[in-house]
This record gives sequence, C-alpha cells and structure tokens, in this order.
Amino acid sequence: MPANDRTPVTVIGLGAMGTALAEAFVGAGHPTTVWNRSAEKAVPLVAKGARHAGTVEEAVAAGPLVIACLTTYDATREALEPASATLAGRALVTLNTGTPEGARRMAGWAEARGARFLDGAVKNVPTAVGAPGTLLYYGGDKGVFDTYERTLRVLGGDTVHLGDEPDLAALYEQAVGGLLLPALLGFFQGAALVTARGLTAGTLVRYTVKWLEMIASELPAIAEEIDSGDYTRPRATVGIFHQGIANVPQLGREAGIDVSWHLPMHALLERAVADGHRDHSISALVETLRKPE
Amino acid sequence: MPANDRTPVTVIGLGAMGTALAEAFVGAGHPTTVWNRSAEKAVPLVAKGARHAGTVEEAVAAGPLVIACLTTYDATREALEPASATLAGRALVTLNTGTPEGARRMAGWAEARGARFLDGAVKNVPTAVGAPGTLLYYGGDKGVFDTYERTLRVLGGDTVHLGDEPDLAALYEQAVGGLLLPALLGFFQGAALVTARGLTAGTLVRYTVKWLEMIASELPAIAEEIDSGDYTRPRATVGIFHQGIANVPQLGREAGIDVSWHLPMHALLERAVADGHRDHSISALVETLRKPE
Repeated sequence: MPANDRTPVTVIGLGAMGTALAEAFVGAGHPTTVWNRSAEKAVPLVAKGARHAGTVEEAVAAGPLVIACLTTYDATREALEPASATLAGRALVTLNTGTPEGARRMAGWAEARGARFLDGAVKNVPTAVGAPGTLLYYGGDKGVFDTYERTLRVLGGDTVHLGDEPDLAALYEQAVGGLLLPALLGFFQGAALVTARGLTAGTLVRYTVKWLEMIASELPAIAEEIDSGDYTRPRATVGIFHQGIANVPQLGREAGIDVSWHLPMHALLERAVADGHRDHSISALVETLRKPE
Repeated sequence: MPANDRTPVTVIGLGAMGTALAEAFVGAGHPTTVWNRSAEKAVPLVAKGARHAGTVEEAVAAGPLVIACLTTYDATREALEPASATLAGRALVTLNTGTPEGARRMAGWAEARGARFLDGAVKNVPTAVGAPGTLLYYGGDKGVFDTYERTLRVLGGDTVHLGDEPDLAALYEQAVGGLLLPALLGFFQGAALVTARGLTAGTLVRYTVKWLEMIASELPAIAEEIDSGDYTRPRATVGIFHQGIANVPQLGREAGIDVSWHLPMHALLERAVADGHRDHSISALVETLRKPE
C-alpha cells in the first residue's frame, strides 16, 4: 500500500515517548508532522522522514489526527492553546500521565474547541512502541477510536477501547501503573541488600522474574476475593505478612540501607489486624485502603 | 521404585506450608513423620499415610532428614529444644521467614548440637509445592544438599543451592520476596480505585499481568544499571516517577481511599532529585536507599 493511503498524523511533544510514537508512524509510512517547543528534538525525526512544523497551529492543521504526548494535561493545554481555533473537527488524542479528574477537564477543553477526544495510555516503555504485544488503552469518543483504530494500532498491537468515559484510561493508568514504583522499589531494596554482601543485582533477576510470574498467576484469585468480598479462604494471610514485615528494620540495619518506605505498609497491616483480618487473605488490605484514617 | 527405597523425612510444623511439604513427601512415597504442637493438624496427613510422632524427639529420631517449617527461627529452636540430643548427625533443614542474622544464629544452634544445617525458602504459595516449576533455594552445608537433593526436589522442580553460607537463602528470600507486599499493595490500590467507580478488580488482571511481564522484561537492564553504577542512559527517569507520584494524593481523595503508604516513596524520589538524579534512570533510587537519612 503506498504511503499516501495512510492517515496523516501529527505528534505534539517529542520527549522519549513522543519521539517513539512519531518514529513508529514514520516507520509505518504515515505522513507524520511533529512539533516540539525546543525544535532540535525534531531533527532526528526529520532525518527519518517526519515533517517539522514551525508552529503548533501549523502542526495541528497538517492532518485530522493530533496526538499529544506531553508531561501533563496542563502542559498539553498550554502547548495547544495557540492552535485552539484549528482543533475544531479534528480528533485529539492525549497520551500523558494524569488523574481521571485531569482527563475529564482535558475532555471539556477539547469539546469546547469542537475537537473529538480520546485519552489513552501507553502501558510500556518507549522502546516497546510499535511491537505486536504492546498495550495501549483509550477512553472517550468511540467514533474516533473506530475511525483511527488501524492508525493507533501502529503504536502497539494490543490496542483497546475501555469505554466512552474520557477518564477511563487515566483511571486504569493509575490503577494498573500504580504497582510499578512500589514493585521497583522492592527490587531496588533487594539489590541494595545483596550488593551490600558483595553479590550482584544481576543474581536476583532470575528469582525475581519467577516471583513476578507467581504474583501474576495469583492475580485472578486475588481479584475474585476482592470482587466477592470473601477473604476467608486465604492463600496467604494478613498475619503472615504482618509477621514478615517485622523483620525489615533489622534487615535494613544489617545492610546499612534505608527501609523507611516500609513503615506505612507496616501501619496498614497493623490496622488490618486490628480490624480482625489477621487470618484473612492479604487481599483484605483493600478494605483497609477503603477506610482512610 | 518401592516406597521403602525413599529417604524417610520428618516435617516439623504443620501450618499451610508445612502441611503442603508433608503432603508432597507422602505423595512421592517417602516415609513421612510429622509433628505439630497442636496434634489435630496432623489428622488429615495421617489419613494420607503420614506417621504422627507423639513427641518432637520421636519425630526427629524417625529419620536422617528433619525439615522444620515454623514461623520463625525462635519458634523453630523452641520447638526443637526437647530433641536437642537427638539432632546430632542428622540433617536439619529450616524453611521459614527470617533475617540473615537469624539464619546465622540458627546455624550456630544446629552446629552446637552436631546437626548439619541447610536453610531454605519456598518461593511460592503452598498450593504450588511439588510442581516442576516451583523454586526453592538453600544456603548452607553443600554436603547435605548433595545427599538429599533428590528428596528436596520433591518439593519443587527448581531446587537450587545458593552457596555454603547458611544465611544466603534468608538474604535472597528477603531480597526477592521484599517486592511482594509493595507490588500487591499497588494492585490493591488499583482495585480500590476501579471498584470505587463500580468496575470490578477482575478488569485489572489482564492489564496488570502485562505490566508485570513488562517489569520482568526490564529487570536485566535495571540490574545492569545497578551493577555498573551507570544511570545515565535512562529508560524511565527519576523525574518522570517524581512527577507521576504527585498525582497520587488527588487520586486518593477522588476515590476516597488511603494512599498514605505512598508518602515515603515520594520522599525517596524527592531525595533522589535533590541528589541530582532527576534525569537518571529510576534505578538510581538504589543509591538513595544506600544513604539512610
């Protein structure tokens, strides 16, 4: 299929992720217009065949589908403001971090300018953009999703529309992505522990991958417990975790590392035990999270 | 092979994990003697063919290989104390949660009684005991491991000797296992977020599994950064996480859930930024953990 049968795409914001998105579109033969506040970020993309617009208005005017990949919704609105009048009738897709409330405000802003709106999230690292298994999900105007699904799929083979509410991707992005930092910190702490003994962080990888697979295999049962509210057939109890976490401060002292980020997890377990969940499944912690002190 | 060619095994402590261990040995045809402080826990195992010893001394005397699966090293010593004189010349294997220091103390206790010692960890849930992919690792007397490797492998096909130091399994258990609670809390928080919107925790599973796979695929590169100390080619920066976590309090307010366990993670990111790691890989947080305030 010749390149000129492909939907023209505009990518606003050329950080690591925006650059990866633009590269994927260029690689798939889409006429790709890019814009970034500091123009030098566009240079490598132009060398690969993208067109660099001089102004954000010119960038938006270049096609029917505008993908904004800035750091926040505020930054997105600020960047797009000069192109306000040009957005009418176009599809605006935002791919940035933010809260559901932020996504709803962004949707209102786009609607007020006559743009159809989708908010999405790339559930992977920039280097994974374009791969068949890479997941992106979107919430908002189903018509936009249906019209451009094939184009959006260039960014990742596992492309999903969650529903018509424009904050659903932000909600799921936070709900799913919220696991990343604590999980990584768990690995970093493990790395600090073994490297303090002269062993390498690399020796942990095989065991940690297995551990992550174990967690993944337990998630359906855990979700089932949460959705049923029945925590009485525990595979691992609150009490076991409560006992285990008591070791952490000594562990930190022994290795000379900071384990203070564990303290509020300890407090949550204390509260769960106080609420009668000691012999319940660890997933009963959801009930504790639902009761802010 | 007839059952009487199998090494007789003693299992001390019949919690969920100890019971699973004993069941696996019975199932594999090993003459299995069990002991638990409250004897009624032994009843289902006896029905399956295990022998219940009346005293811990009798249990230890029943064979050359004694596996203790109690909650702590303290509990293990307390339970085994009456069998002190009987332990000489036998192999004692402990499978419980504890610190490296606790494992070293346990090793000293066993040595003083003339027992050969291995400390291990089951890196999975009780229901996974006996499966070909289930991982158990051990630290301590290599001779014990070599002599009983085939018997120990009954508990899981992925059975590893980490080294001669008796605290290595406890070290790795903490280093690898320390990721579990924070990762689960991340999932629980996500579940609280989506269920507050009337969606099920089940809808998160597919996306979270993918997210865990993504984390697993990044671990070799992350470990490499930590082992080289070179954080200057970031795939995801400290700054991006620092920005992302700023959304969490609003998210909590919106959904009416407790996100206070994030606060010290926020503080760690602040310190990492203050130390000049904003544009470095998120794995530079290891350096922050290594500098307790």
